[in-house]
Formats: sequence, structure tokens, C-alpha cells
Amino acid sequence: MRAVVFEGYKTFPVLKDVDRPTPGPGEVLLQVAGAGACHSDVGLFHDFEGDPTGLLTPPFVLGHENSGWVEEVGPGVTGFEQGEAYLVYGPVGCGRCRACSRGQDTYCAQPQEVGYAAMGLGRDGGMAEYLLAPARNLVPLGDADPIDAAPLADAGLTPYHAIKRALPSLAGGGRSALVVGLGGLGLVGVQILKALTGAQVIATDLKPEAMAQAEEYGAVTVPGGDDQVERIKELTGGRGVDAVFDMVGADATLKLAGATVAQQGSLTVVGIGGGTFPWNFFTVPYEVNFSSTYWGTIEDLHDVAAMYRLGQITPVVERYTLDHALEAYRRLQDGELSARAVVVPHGW
Amino acid sequence: MRAVVFEGYKTFPVLKDVDRPTPGPGEVLLQVAGAGACHSDVGLFHDFEGDPTGLLTPPFVLGHENSGWVEEVGPGVTGFEQGEAYLVYGPVGCGRCRACSRGQDTYCAQPQEVGYAAMGLGRDGGMAEYLLAPARNLVPLGDADPIDAAPLADAGLTPYHAIKRALPSLAGGGRSALVVGLGGLGLVGVQILKALTGAQVIATDLKPEAMAQAEEYGAVTVPGGDDQVERIKELTGGRGVDAVFDMVGADATLKLAGATVAQQGSLTVVGIGGGTFPWNFFTVPYEVNFSSTYWGTIEDLHDVAAMYRLGQITPVVERYTLDHALEAYRRLQDGELSARAVVVPHGW
Amino acid sequence: MRAVVFEGYKTFPVLKDVDRPTPGPGEVLLQVAGAGACHSDVGLFHDFEGDPTGLLTPPFVLGHENSGWVEEVGPGVTGFEQGEAYLVYGPVGCGRCRACSRGQDTYCAQPQEVGYAAMGLGRDGGMAEYLLAPARNLVPLGDADPIDAAPLADAGLTPYHAIKRALPSLAGGGRSALVVGLGGLGLVGVQILKALTGAQVIATDLKPEAMAQAEEYGAVTVPGGDDQVERIKELTGGRGVDAVFDMVGADATLKLAGATVAQQGSLTVVGIGGGTFPWNFFTVPYEVNFSSTYWGTIEDLHDVAAMYRLGQITPVVERYTLDHALEAYRRLQDGELSARAVVVPHGW
Amino acid sequence: MRAVVFEGYKTFPVLKDVDRPTPGPGEVLLQVAGAGACHSDVGLFHDFEGDPTGLLTPPFVLGHENSGWVEEVGPGVTGFEQGEAYLVYGPVGCGRCRACSRGQDTYCAQPQEVGYAAMGLGRDGGMAEYLLAPARNLVPLGDADPIDAAPLADAGLTPYHAIKRALPSLAGGGRSALVVGLGGLGLVGVQILKALTGAQVIATDLKPEAMAQAEEYGAVTVPGGDDQVERIKELTGGRGVDAVFDMVGADATLKLAGATVAQQGSLTVVGIGGGTFPWNFFTVPYEVNFSSTYWGTIEDLHDVAAMYRLGQITPVVERYTLDHALEAYRRLQDGELSARAVVVPHGW
Repeated sequence: MRAVVFEGYKTFPVLKDVDRPTPGPGEVLLQVAGAGACHSDVGLFHDFEGDPTGLLTPPFVLGHENSGWVEEVGPGVTGFEQGEAYLVYGPVGCGRCRACSRGQDTYCAQPQEVGYAAMGLGRDGGMAEYLLAPARNLVPLGDADPIDAAPLADAGLTPYHAIKRALPSLAGGGRSALVVGLGGLGLVGVQILKALTGAQVIATDLKPEAMAQAEEYGAVTVPGGDDQVERIKELTGGRGVDAVFDMVGADATLKLAGATVAQQGSLTVVGIGGGTFPWNFFTVPYEVNFSSTYWGTIEDLHDVAAMYRLGQITPVVERYTLDHALEAYRRLQDGELSARAVVVPHGW
Repeated sequence: MRAVVFEGYKTFPVLKDVDRPTPGPGEVLLQVAGAGACHSDVGLFHDFEGDPTGLLTPPFVLGHENSGWVEEVGPGVTGFEQGEAYLVYGPVGCGRCRACSRGQDTYCAQPQEVGYAAMGLGRDGGMAEYLLAPARNLVPLGDADPIDAAPLADAGLTPYHAIKRALPSLAGGGRSALVVGLGGLGLVGVQILKALTGAQVIATDLKPEAMAQAEEYGAVTVPGGDDQVERIKELTGGRGVDAVFDMVGADATLKLAGATVAQQGSLTVVGIGGGTFPWNFFTVPYEVNFSSTYWGTIEDLHDVAAMYRLGQITPVVERYTLDHALEAYRRLQDGELSARAVVVPHGW
Repeated sequence: MRAVVFEGYKTFPVLKDVDRPTPGPGEVLLQVAGAGACHSDVGLFHDFEGDPTGLLTPPFVLGHENSGWVEEVGPGVTGFEQGEAYLVYGPVGCGRCRACSRGQDTYCAQPQEVGYAAMGLGRDGGMAEYLLAPARNLVPLGDADPIDAAPLADAGLTPYHAIKRALPSLAGGGRSALVVGLGGLGLVGVQILKALTGAQVIATDLKPEAMAQAEEYGAVTVPGGDDQVERIKELTGGRGVDAVFDMVGADATLKLAGATVAQQGSLTVVGIGGGTFPWNFFTVPYEVNFSSTYWGTIEDLHDVAAMYRLGQITPVVERYTLDHALEAYRRLQDGELSARAVVVPHGW
Repeated sequence: MRAVVFEGYKTFPVLKDVDRPTPGPGEVLLQVAGAGACHSDVGLFHDFEGDPTGLLTPPFVLGHENSGWVEEVGPGVTGFEQGEAYLVYGPVGCGRCRACSRGQDTYCAQPQEVGYAAMGLGRDGGMAEYLLAPARNLVPLGDADPIDAAPLADAGLTPYHAIKRALPSLAGGGRSALVVGLGGLGLVGVQILKALTGAQVIATDLKPEAMAQAEEYGAVTVPGGDDQVERIKELTGGRGVDAVFDMVGADATLKLAGATVAQQGSLTVVGIGGGTFPWNFFTVPYEVNFSSTYWGTIEDLHDVAAMYRLGQITPVVERYTLDHALEAYRRLQDGELSARAVVVPHGW
């Protein structure tokens, strides 16, 4: 079968023929419906000098945001029917530690035992005609379109998990949230916040189109500028924002987040922008929970799928055939995309 | 000043002249903007044989859902300006126990020390030209209309508190809620659930008009009948309802609640209908939190006021002058009202 | 191999030869270290008229409280070494639903798909020389004695899960807990409460020896009698108990639980005694979370194993060879045991 | 009456005669039992250049850790009897905002309205023969010794509040906590953690005597040194610490805290040491809640008093007469104290 393969660091991926895999014990072979192209893939092949963790050893097929139809099941797997559509939870841990036992393979205690982090991240991913996944990683999509759903496996799950962790900060009347950065994750984040809370959702980004899109989803937007902090605080009656989500994670966005969060609120850094925030007792309000977060759990993905099926989350996607997958990555790398590129190996 | 006074059990209240009160230490005198007539008042003067708690000793002015404008402050009170509009938290406890310290006077450990339960419930209430309230019981309304706000002090605060307690059951995608009973509390409950959660809100009542109103607020309604439980479960994909709110509390509604709640969900009995539910390990799903709840906290009322100011809660009211206050109670007693009666002593 | 087999309802189990199983995909074969005999087994073969759920179809090997040493692993299983000791999480669900994804197979959404509830409950259990378990069901015991650990898989996990759910009721100074019923679960419950909370632990049982044992673990005991409720309330300064655990679940114990629980506390029914409690708005204090609970999660069992390894939980056991396993069940059935009977197939 | 008065920044306090105050509306006059001398007082008169907040304007009587016996009550105050012993919640806010409504005056939204932060911090404190306090700030001590209790109002309440917020991180078996800095707050913190959780409590300080004291309370201690982080991690099986409490807040202690906290744990900065931590997505484990905290709530102080009465917290104090109060401050300033200095105006 054809697949987009990551063959080495500092090297653009290639489209090539590889063997179609066979499901082993506990595994399901999926015909791929969609595979999202994520910025972190560009980081992998373009930015990194080499494998930072020992879990991302090339070569492997890219694609960690996947969906597909059941093609074949491996030994010991029951309860699936050919052709059923599933969204795929990408991380695959040891399956036996505490974190894996609760379906949070992202925090597996012994990832070196399996040797990879996730499908498309060390283990073969979904930018191919077929994908192998452990049965427990599959979340049913029912009648909903699996192609547009693909990005939800990361661009939906990651903001969902971050927001779910912060819901206690938003539980009640008169609360507010701020989303900093309105790329794929940020725009889904705005939709999730509007759907699940009564909070005023404030959003900001450098791109006016992204701001316009957030407004369409119901957010109030505040552009950058010297008075940005002041304007955001004004929107909250001077109190600050109950839950801030920094989808960028750069020095400047962390600074904005820290300057706008309210006492006893939460500040969650989702974006892996590499920024540093000089935390000090006097610069962050009392009792703010300042934390990072990473991807999500299998159960979270069930929730995300439910929201997608109800129309509460609508990913904005651009479809590419597998023949054009490398073009999608090239455009992503060059900042030419304004929607999530989804590679669709079997047409639409 | 004129006031609606409860003079004895099994006795209809009277409209009469009483002395206008003077604010003592820590108190504020309000010119009453609105005072809601609540079903529990009818219980008091019509149903009860006598004082069940020792805290409801007549005579006292009725009205526990109040709002008003500052008229005068007592010794030691600062920070108020004449004419400012406030919503009034009705319960008044000892002020020194744990519950009072956290603004939950409803659960005061020593109410017999003060000798009453709340304004309009043992202590003079708001069905009068003026009302005395402790300064800490006042929640600012800003520019919002204080007259329509009056019922929020109970018919808003009570469902809010119940829903806030149950929010963990509704925190996430794909959740559902059920409101049983669509009177004043139930209809506000539907509005709060729609505003604060992403849950599918299911509602039921015997009156078609109430059902229609709930649908306008975004609820899915299911009428009574042999297949009611089945139809509600179908709406939840067979799983049951994550958070059930029984605003009636009769045998039949408790039975419906217990039959529709989902495993690990919550079932909150808000209505004081006197019903009994035969709880058994096998008749209620595992890990359902089955509980009652009563009124709310001062902090909750701040949240309710915020939602009202944002237009997320709109009480449906019928205004009566103080001259027609007794007519309001008579119509309430006879089931002739389809909206909350608010007595407005100073006109509108 | 020899095994204790449940062959039919209303029929005492038999000790017989069965085939030694072979590990399938994702499975591990354990040499059994210990298998606890639980009251619910007696319910199964002595009390029930037939299979209540369709998941408990004889014949199968009994024993749902198991521990063992790795003997052999099935296809796709890695990371185990022969001879390592593990505690076994008994429930086995579909592995793909939300509940299974978070390691709570007890609440599997589609148990009929696998056709059994747990090892020893529909699927072959541990009262045999060897036991088959899915790899994810194994919790490492390190150097701790696996034989005495066996009962922890139910008699430890069940009270742990119940107590962990109720910890918010006990989080802080000046709290109190009540354990009603001091059999296997109750005595472990007392140990867990003493270890994990600062609460005053009150305990009650009909048997003086059980009360003495609870006192040794640090509980204050209150015998039955007309003034029992009053004496328990006195111990809490009149306020009632913050977290009540009914390990029996009979009419009388539910009544005691409801009469002693404090406002805003929790009342958890753990024991499956079949009792009924007439829940009413006025008979249970406000905001008490009244709930059942059932067994626990894989992650909980990791916590239980950690407590056992730290000496915070010490099960009281009586060891039996496999030859004497039926005698253990007979004594359990006749109420002659004062400790948990653990069948030890390979000697000690 | 005599009182220790703070008369100006960069100026050592003086012992002088001032008028004995008279209780106003809602106030109680206490005969002071004990008043603790706290490091932050030294900060006030020795370190600060001037009033940083506008709420600490000299002159005022020092002492924010107070206890006393009721002497006289002001207008509108009921329910107190002369001679009853109370612990005093120091912060005094506006009484009407959300934070004050829940008894968390530390986070009053409009402290400038009252013009001070707390008794002994802008408003007259307890280093005097008599102290005025709002009735709601008094927590009953019953028969317990009020003199030794005095420091609990800050050195007990502050770690209690920090620990209570972090209890979810410690709720379960196999958890661990780290206390960095074993002065007054740290040593009480160790006692609270041992009493309220089952966690392994690790503690560290530069002073061997403080470490020895912590060991007596049940902590495992780890001295400073190059391998300190490694040794602490070893104690947790390599996983890191579930809840870290930095009672110092200097650069070095923040660094230690960040290096030892476990994924999904909590890191609470209690000490106001002015340090800065360079927070970065890659330097702090995922989902760690990194936060400051400040003092506590009235309800927390009820819990602290309950623990003191049960013997779960024992402050280590050195008593001084009012005549020797300035000596206590001088020794505190010079680092000569090894216990909390409590000024006892009326002898013992």
C-alpha cells in the first residue's frame, strides 16, 4: 500500500509503497478514512535535530489524527463489524501501568517498553491506505462522517482535555474564558467552551480571519496591542479571566495569559511553543492553577465524538488525496493553510 | 407602611399597616422593588397545622423573594449608596457557625438562636413597602431591572444551587439532564442548564403550556404516559440521564427520576412534595448520588444575578401592586397563575 | 489441574480435574498464589435460584479474589517475567466501551458481549492451580506476600473504592466516619479510613470480637441498642457522621445509616443485603449523597496494593490447601469463619 | 491599655499605652489570651520601605495570630458569654463581596473600602491587653488552651488551607508529600499532612533541629546536597511527589519543588520568599497545578481548631509577657527563636 513515510530528521517525508500490515492479537486493521496533518509533524521532520525521546525513531508512517473503517480484526478481537467507522485514539502505551489502565496512554509509565509514543509518532500512523490500531483505541462514530472527524483525534481531543480539566473554574454563572491562539486547536477550543459552559469566551490571534471565525462561533475577540490586557480585563469587569488557555505557548502568549488570569482561576498551557514564564508569588494572582496539559484520554475521545455527532464541534478541513499528501505537508510547513489538511486515501 | 402579614396558621394573610422598620447595626433598609409570591407561602398559611420548626412563629410579613433599592443604612454599615438596586438573600442565620461563615445560612447550626429561618419565613419579609436586611445579604443588580429579578432570590437560587452541585455529572460532551416539573423553579432550571452546560435537556410536566415554554428555552419534552421512561432513555441512547432534577418531589416524580437516572449520575430532589422513594441496591443504578437540596448560598446568588444581567435567565412574571397582593396569593392558592406573581409596592 | 467448580445453582461446588488453560492473545497464565473465598460465592451456589444476569452460567471455576505468579504469556504480551507476583483485577469487560477504557470493567456497557462478569463469576476464577487473566488486569505486588494479598482483590478493593469516592466528605479536620458491619470488608474499611483520613472512625457490629478487632485498628465502637443512634451522634458533637459506609445493606443497617449521617455528608451502601430505605426529603438530612457502589477500578487496585505493601492494610486470613477448599466454603456457609479463607493451591 | 505599636516603616515597634477600644456594631471585645509573633511582622517593620498596598498604614497594634476571652459585645451581637475562649480569624474585608460572603476575606474584592488587610495588618491587632474583632471572625475553642492556640490563626491556618486545596492530589493509597522549609508553618504542615492523609511525608530544611522535629512528627527527612532531588525521587519510587509545599518561596526552594513534583501532582508555594521560577512546558511535568496560596477561610479555621482540640496539631511555642514582647520581636528578627513566640498579656 502507499504511505507517507518519515525517513529521517531534517528530511521531508516521502510517499512510497510499504507492506500492508496484518492485525496481531488485540488489533484491528482499518481502511483509513482520513488522516490529519498536524503542525507537530512539521516540527518532527523540519525542526528537530534528532529524536528527543528515543520513541520517535524513523522510519514510520506519519499521521496521528486518524479515522477509518474496520477491514479486518486480529486474534482475540470481537465485537467489530467490517465497514463500521471509528475515530482512533493515537497514543499506545504499555497497557499495564496505572495511566494506561485508565486510558491515558499519553502518560504511560514505561513507554520505552513499547518503543514508540503513538501511531504516527514512532509507530506507523494513518497517512496510508491502511492503519493498525489496538481495539481499545477505537471510538465509534456511528453514522457521522469519519473523514472530517479525523482531526478530532488530536485537534479536538487536546483542547477538550485541557478544557475538561479546567471546567471547575468555569462551573457557574458569570464566568469567562480566554483562548489565546486560533489555529486548529484554538478554534475547536472556542466551540467546546461555547458548547459546554456559560462562560463569556474571549479569543485573540494575530490573524484577522481566525478572529472572524472565532466570532462566528460566538467568541468576543480582542486584537493585540498595548491595551490588550486592559481590554480583556474590562470585559471581565476588572476581575480577570477564570480560565485561560494558551494554545501557542510562546513567551509573549504566556505573558498575556499570566497578566489576564483571575485570582483562583486556571491557566492552561496547551501549545508547545517553548516559551518560558517567570512565575513569582507576586506576578500571578493567588491560587491560580498554572499547568500544562498534553493530548487526552480514550474516554475524552468518546466525549469529543459525541460532541461531533451532535454538531457541537465542526472541524474546518481541506481534503487531499493521498497523491497530494506531500503537498499538504508542504503548504502546512509554508503557512499556506487556513484549515486542517485531511488526507483521504480512498476518495470522497 | 402597608404589609402583607401572616397572622396565624390555617389563616389567609392580611394587608395591614405596620411600623416602618429602622435599620439596626449591620442592617440596610430597602425600599422594596419586588417581592415574589412562592408556593411555600401557601403551604405556610393554608396547609400547615402549626409551626413545624419553632422558627416560623406568626405574625410576620411574608415574602422571601425580594429585591429593592437602598433607603437607609444602620450603624456600622458602609459602602452603600441610596437608590442602588439589590437582590436579597433571604436566609438569616447566627452569622458565626461554619455554615454561616461560608454564606450558607440555610444550614445554620443554631437557627433557634436568632429565632427565624429567613426574611418572610419567621422574620419580616418583602411583601411591604420597606424591608430590613443584613448588609451581607445584598447582591448588587447594577442597571438590571430589580422588579423582575425578585423571584430569582428563591425560584432562581434554588435550581441554581441544585444544578451547580450536580455540574460534575454534566461536565463533558454527550451528557443529558432531566427536569421533572416545569413550574417557576423548573423553567428557570431549564434555562440554567441550557446556559451552563452542553447537555441535552429533557423536560416533562403535566401542563402542555409549561412544556411548550420549556421547548422555547431549548429543552426536548417528553409527556407522561406508560412509555415515558422508555422514551426518555431512548433520548439518551439507552444509557439514562446523567443528572435528574425532581422539582416536584412526589411519589410519582421520584419514581420517574429513579427509573431514568444513569449509572454514576446524580438525582437531586428539589421539590418538597413529601413523596417517598423506596431506595434499594438493585432499583437505583450503581453510584448514583441521590440527594435533596435546599435553597442556596450568598455566593450562588451572585452567580444568579450575573446570569440575569447577561440575559441567561429570564423569569416569567406577572406584576401586582401591593393593593392586589392578596389577590396574587389567592390566585396562587387556586392554581390560576401561569407565571410568578411579583408584588411591586412602589409601582412600575 | 484441580479446581473448585461451580456446576449449578443450589448445588455445592465440587473439587475436580479440569484442563489447564493456555493463554490466548493478550492473556497471562498465572500459577495461583491465593484465592479468597467470598460470601457472594455462597450466595451464588446456595441462595440464588438461577442466573440473575445471564453472565453467571455454570460451570465455571470459582474464586474472584486472586493473586499469582506469572507462568506463561500469550501472543502479543510483553513486559512480564516468569515468577513475578501479581494481584488480579477480577472484572473483565468488553475492553472497548467508555467504562472499560478507564479500567472500570465493573460498569462495562456490553457485558453480554463477553458473556461473563468476572473471573470466578461466569469466567474461570482462581480456585485452581492456574488462572488465566488479561495482562491489563494484573497489578504488581513486588516483594510483598501474594498469598495474604489475595482477598484484597475484592475485600480490599470494594471498601477502597467506596471510601475513595467519599473522601471529599472526609477531607479536612474534625470529620467523622462510620463503618456499619465489621466482616472482611468492614475491617479493611476501618484500616483504610484510619490510614487515609484524619477522621474519627466509628464502627459497629453484632459480634464483640469484630468490634474488638476494629478497636485494635483505632476505631471507636458503639454496640447496638436503643440508644445507638444517640451515642453515635454524641461522638460527633451532635452533628452526625460525615461519611457512613453500610457494609451490610439490610433494612436495619440502612435505617441506622440514614439516622446518623450528617447534613451534606455521604452515605454509601456497599453491602448487598437486599434492604430497602424509604428515602424522603424530611428523613435524610439535606445534601446527603446517598449511593451504592460496586467493586472498583484497576487503578484503585494499584492503590490498594501500594497500601498493602506499606503495611497500611493487613487482611486477616486463614489459609487452606486446595484439598481443603470445599471445607473452607462449608465453614463460610455455616458462619464458622472469623477470618478470610484463602485457598493456597501450591502450599506455603 | 498597653500595646505593641507599629509606628512607621523601617522602625522597630514600641510598647506603649493606647486607649482600650469599645466594641462597635457587630464587634466583640476580647481579653487577649495569646498573640503570636510572625516573620511577616519583621518584614513589615524591618524590610519594607513603605506601605506596598495602601492597607498597612501605621500606626496600628501588631499581632495577627490571636486568641482571647470574650469581655464585652457590641450592639447587635448575641450568642456570646463572657470568658468564653475564641481563636480569631484575622482578615477583615468588606463583608459584602463574593469572597467575603464565603468567609474568605483574604480575597476581598474591595479592601480599600475598609482600609486595612487584617487585625495586626493595618487594623489594630492582638499584641495588647484587648482586641476588637467582628463576631463572625471568632472560632470557639471550648476547653482547649487558648494561649498555645494563638499561632494557629496564621501558622496553622495557612498550611491548612494550602494542604486542603491540595488534598485531591493526596486522596488515595501510595501518595507522597514534600514539605520544603520547617519553620512554624512547615512543622504544622507536617502534622496536618500526617493527620489528614496516608501519604508518605518527606521534609527538608537547612536546620538539623527542625529536621529532627519533623521526624518526630512522622516525616522522612532528606537534607540538602547535590543528590537531594534524586534521593527524594527515590523515596517515591522514581515517580516524584504528588503534592509539594514550598514554605519558603526562594529561588532555590522553588527549583527543588519543580524538580521533585510528579506528573499530575500539585506544587503550592506558601512562603513569600520572593523567588522566581522559570516555568516552561518542558521543565515542569504535565498537568502539575503550580500555584500560590494565601492564608485561609473562616471555615478552615474551624477545622484547624477541631484538629487542635483533638491533639492532631500541637504548635511549639515560647511564651512572653507583654513586657517582653519587644524582646520576642528582636529575637525573631535576629533568628534566635526556635519556637513560635506567643505574647501573653494576662499571664499564665
